Amino acid sequence: MTTDAVRRHDPEIKTFASDNYAGVHPEILEAVALANGGHQISYGDDVYTEAIQEIFRGHFGERAEAWPVFNGTAANVISLRSICAPWEAVVCAESAHINTDEGGAPEVTGGLKLLTVPTPDGKLTPELIDRQAWGFGDVHRAQPRVVSISNATELGTLYTPAEIKAICDHAHELGMIVHLDGSRITNAAAALDVPLRALTTDAGVDVLSFGGTKIGLLLGEAVVVLNPAAVRGLPYLRKTSMQLASKMRFVSVQFEALLAGDLWLRNARQANTMAARLASAVREIPGVEVPRPVEANAVFAILPADAADRLRKRYRFYNWNEQVGGGRVEVRWMCAFDTTEADVDAFAAALAAEMHA
Amino acid sequence: MTTDAVRRHDPEIKTFASDNYAGVHPEILEAVALANGGHQISYGDDVYTEAIQEIFRGHFGERAEAWPVFNGTAANVISLRSICAPWEAVVCAESAHINTDEGGAPEVTGGLKLLTVPTPDGKLTPELIDRQAWGFGDVHRAQPRVVSISNATELGTLYTPAEIKAICDHAHELGMIVHLDGSRITNAAAALDVPLRALTTDAGVDVLSFGGTKIGLLLGEAVVVLNPAAVRGLPYLRKTSMQLASKMRFVSVQFEALLAGDLWLRNARQANTMAARLASAVREIPGVEVPRPVEANAVFAILPADAADRLRKRYRFYNWNEQVGGGRVEVRWMCAFDTTEADVDAFAAALAAEMHA
Amino acid sequence: MTTDAVRRHDPEIKTFASDNYAGVHPEILEAVALANGGHQISYGDDVYTEAIQEIFRGHFGERAEAWPVFNGTAANVISLRSICAPWEAVVCAESAHINTDEGGAPEVTGGLKLLTVPTPDGKLTPELIDRQAWGFGDVHRAQPRVVSISNATELGTLYTPAEIKAICDHAHELGMIVHLDGSRITNAAAALDVPLRALTTDAGVDVLSFGGTKIGLLLGEAVVVLNPAAVRGLPYLRKTSMQLASKMRFVSVQFEALLAGDLWLRNARQANTMAARLASAVREIPGVEVPRPVEANAVFAILPADAADRLRKRYRFYNWNEQVGGGRVEVRWMCAFDTTEADVDAFAAALAAEMHA
Amino acid sequence: MTTDAVRRHDPEIKTFASDNYAGVHPEILEAVALANGGHQISYGDDVYTEAIQEIFRGHFGERAEAWPVFNGTAANVISLRSICAPWEAVVCAESAHINTDEGGAPEVTGGLKLLTVPTPDGKLTPELIDRQAWGFGDVHRAQPRVVSISNATELGTLYTPAEIKAICDHAHELGMIVHLDGSRITNAAAALDVPLRALTTDAGVDVLSFGGTKIGLLLGEAVVVLNPAAVRGLPYLRKTSMQLASKMRFVSVQFEALLAGDLWLRNARQANTMAARLASAVREIPGVEVPRPVEANAVFAILPADAADRLRKRYRFYNWNEQVGGGRVEVRWMCAFDTTEADVDAFAAALAAEMHA
Repeated sequence: MTTDAVRRHDPEIKTFASDNYAGVHPEILEAVALANGGHQISYGDDVYTEAIQEIFRGHFGERAEAWPVFNGTAANVISLRSICAPWEAVVCAESAHINTDEGGAPEVTGGLKLLTVPTPDGKLTPELIDRQAWGFGDVHRAQPRVVSISNATELGTLYTPAEIKAICDHAHELGMIVHLDGSRITNAAAALDVPLRALTTDAGVDVLSFGGTKIGLLLGEAVVVLNPAAVRGLPYLRKTSMQLASKMRFVSVQFEALLAGDLWLRNARQANTMAARLASAVREIPGVEVPRPVEANAVFAILPADAADRLRKRYRFYNWNEQVGGGRVEVRWMCAFDTTEADVDAFAAALAAEMHA
Repeated sequence: MTTDAVRRHDPEIKTFASDNYAGVHPEILEAVALANGGHQISYGDDVYTEAIQEIFRGHFGERAEAWPVFNGTAANVISLRSICAPWEAVVCAESAHINTDEGGAPEVTGGLKLLTVPTPDGKLTPELIDRQAWGFGDVHRAQPRVVSISNATELGTLYTPAEIKAICDHAHELGMIVHLDGSRITNAAAALDVPLRALTTDAGVDVLSFGGTKIGLLLGEAVVVLNPAAVRGLPYLRKTSMQLASKMRFVSVQFEALLAGDLWLRNARQANTMAARLASAVREIPGVEVPRPVEANAVFAILPADAADRLRKRYRFYNWNEQVGGGRVEVRWMCAFDTTEADVDAFAAALAAEMHA
Repeated sequence: MTTDAVRRHDPEIKTFASDNYAGVHPEILEAVALANGGHQISYGDDVYTEAIQEIFRGHFGERAEAWPVFNGTAANVISLRSICAPWEAVVCAESAHINTDEGGAPEVTGGLKLLTVPTPDGKLTPELIDRQAWGFGDVHRAQPRVVSISNATELGTLYTPAEIKAICDHAHELGMIVHLDGSRITNAAAALDVPLRALTTDAGVDVLSFGGTKIGLLLGEAVVVLNPAAVRGLPYLRKTSMQLASKMRFVSVQFEALLAGDLWLRNARQANTMAARLASAVREIPGVEVPRPVEANAVFAILPADAADRLRKRYRFYNWNEQVGGGRVEVRWMCAFDTTEADVDAFAAALAAEMHA
Repeated sequence: MTTDAVRRHDPEIKTFASDNYAGVHPEILEAVALANGGHQISYGDDVYTEAIQEIFRGHFGERAEAWPVFNGTAANVISLRSICAPWEAVVCAESAHINTDEGGAPEVTGGLKLLTVPTPDGKLTPELIDRQAWGFGDVHRAQPRVVSISNATELGTLYTPAEIKAICDHAHELGMIVHLDGSRITNAAAALDVPLRALTTDAGVDVLSFGGTKIGLLLGEAVVVLNPAAVRGLPYLRKTSMQLASKMRFVSVQFEALLAGDLWLRNARQANTMAARLASAVREIPGVEVPRPVEANAVFAILPADAADRLRKRYRFYNWNEQVGGGRVEVRWMCAFDTTEADVDAFAAALAAEMHA
């Protein structure tokens, strides 16, 4: 018995466009196969989904509840809707993924108003939060209810446990709830060399979007409730948000493979280490500037637009900012769990060559 | 390298609860592995998603466009929203999945009013449609815009091509659009021994929710647009409905494995044949009634409630109607692509034994 | 100083089409003028809105809170949204105004699924409620949360206090909340000769849409919360539902004029009495049938379609059901607070003439 | 026959808090009385609503269509929804009423994402629009579809016809549509001494929220469609947005009174002139600064917080910005159609007194 599908791509080719260009880690795919065969109760009442609850509790504490969903936008929107009444709003950085990259899903599908704050580095602080966290009780203002932060941020920067705690303390004093968009929370924990709970439960985060896809899953994120008192109606929200997988065992077992051992850490370290290696290499290349701290698996670089375009013929990646001036652009290079030293070195060499072309 | 996940279930155990209790067909999983490795453009710009367009066109005609999504509720809601303005409504059978089993997602997430019609067998007709298809131009009435039918229906019955054509002709005369919930369209085509397009494109259906999960995919459905003039904004709706997979190659390649050859037909025939075998077997058992036609892969049966409960200790399945009277219940037994003759025979024997217990 | 507007209609002409064809009762308009002049705090912090709270408490008990809104659809949708989480649903009669005459606003704007029940006379009972009040805790079913009834009903029938109490007791036992669409609650109370609270607070109703417009206001309805524990976020829902009047004093003072004395009762009795008179008169006319009980201010009649059409050239009214058969139609005639004996008698005479024409 | 309502306020007292603290202009109330009596078709099919169409066309050109609604938030949200598909977004100033003062109604009820731009004076320009008008065709970005401007702005500033034309030309080149929030469009036209159409139709505006309430109506705004090709489904949107008045004649006749002659202009000039008088007077008072141009009927002032608080004991008004520093606050004083010279002079005298207290 052989599939009628055919391989249509060259598995040797890597890019630096996004960590979701990568495929499935072999251990994850092996886990999917393990969970296959025979029948399992659908819609999440299977043994695999049951099993990951304990695994998530091991990482995030005894109160943690994990609700697998399909993708990151869904994890974010469902998290926020589980916290917010329909008239409540979300304070976030202007650069937050929920504001810039989800097609408006929080507003369109969730009816959630985002109260955005410009930030230098993608990170909120108690002071920045206060720019939008006001007007409580004023019916003319969408009521600020959630502070949503991303770690790692969309700009590749990190919040430390202390920074998150300061935000959580401040939000809680205001009667607000803290959501963390953790599509790259594993990269953050690996980079800071702390357990996952140091950046979440222990710092006071109430609800987490835990990212699986970018760290090696075929597909799968989880809404992880750290403070059950902060949320309402999650099973119904997941269903009506069209995020309840019928064959959930295949999503859940991937989380088991990722989190039962240290696969999450191995993958995150690999991606982070490769980003650091890439940053070191390109900093050596005259004319290339690395304008932001490289703290997780993203490297931002400013370089001549024509060099970028030439390099793009060999490697796919995205422009981040085309308004840099001086004929230059800012680009973003992401490393994934499967990026190798050879990949980085070849890319840096290609860059160097194109800078001199 | 070995996964930290462990097998937690007995792959020999089958149930008759639902076709989504089954796992992934081995050819599908093989296809997923084929698509793995290296990097592919995310969010649907990969070569596998490109390739399935031609495959879907082969089945559904030259105008067909396939938009993979995660699950059936999403395929339905996105299909309907792509057709309807916010004030437009959907005529469907009272027993339709969109009305009874999606947690209210069409209304909650899509803002879509459903105009339901009671039916004897889960099937609409032009006459039944007319019970709700009125009030055009009346601002006080949600405007009927779509007729949505399911094939196979939720009651295991089938529409023939001629029946669908009559519905489409009638709907189109009214200025309405036809959506087909095809979560089991493969079972329908196999049972009727017609190509997929005979039940869809050729009969005048405008938009199809094509079901993959129940016929052997790990996960994956597709909105298949058959009449591009009937829809609007699908890429944006898919994104804001949180149904845009980042690693879409792994969803798309499953459709390739299913539809490039005859896997869809083999799987559907197997499920249907097993349902017919099961129906024959249980009809022989005194005290068990099969009250509905067995046309696809569902068998409904009326039997004593206590016998059903005893059987349930050995096999999982659902009650369909507990109001039958006389100490009896109506139950639903579904066959899947992986149901075998041995499974059916063992189940029938168990039923016979419990009837006499 | 004289307005540039001109009178464009003949104030002597009455119809039997709807009680909202009537204008403003002179005492109401006098009240609006009283509230005019000078400045008052906007958005409901004015002295007139404050004053009506006590008036509503006088009618509906000490816990009552009145939230003026613009129209009946808004009163209903805001009431229901204040009770329901986004995944919760409303059990109502198939003939309920929220289901048939609000253009789908509950679904479109509120995301509320309606679980409808066919009824013979527009009235629910505990048994009829049970046809939809099930599936609690089942994520695949929109969660039944509210029972919504209308009194008087859309078919001109009435619930007695005992009937409402039976519904409320049943709903509360199920953990559900009761909403009463009282767009004609004054007609109901007048017809039954009971205080308003007998049909609401004392019977166990949790939230009331109190109707002002049809009983003589220029414009104005109120969400009246009878059980504050049943609702959440009303001020925010009213604002985000675009129902917060800036010059609210002019809405509120109308309620004062209606409810501080007995204007509501005088107006309701007039409308009801005229409907009874009309029913008596038309019952005398051969070939005209009055198929439904005439309990409030609506008279339904079955008569030859051609006679109805001839009569319609002299008086505007609506067909209710064109599927009666035998060349006949069922029509609805409504009496308003300003319908007079002379109006009724002239109409009956016209009907008699057209029946013989 | 005398109303049971009682006058509860002193009509001699004026404030400078908001133009919606004012009541109904006597000519408007007279018009309401004219439209009273007898029966008129409900829900907008009355002769008054018909008549205002020609009046609006007289002001706004032959293609203009007016859709009366209850309040300004509704006029804005319905306007925007009539233009936008559910995935489309609105570019506006950060200070826009739709962003700051509608409780999130555009997002919550309309699902509309606002793409906001900081502005110095509440006014957009083509250059400022470009900060958000990008990403067309990118599924990850809510699609910019509308430019929404306010005139007069929330900061009391005005767009000239030329400025609006530049915005419209730019928006149209981008394939975008222009909405104008005209809650004070009459003040703007009066101040600039131009006809209403110079600021709207002739400048290229597609859809206008025409403000009636703040300029002397009891209640009433209108969505005025200037470019019918830009909108879709207005009658249905108005109904499902719960903004269809049953006794619409009483809303429409107010517009007739306002717009058939020059009442709009008289009222607007009065408010504007009083604001100019107020600005002149307070500029003479040492320690009071008028930091923004006074172009319509708003005066912003910076003064010591304690003086503001003392003055507030005599006159109600709002703080605009409490972060001015130096123990000072910025306050906003609004003049209305009924503000008199004596009111202004008394207020200025009171301010002078409190500054020296």
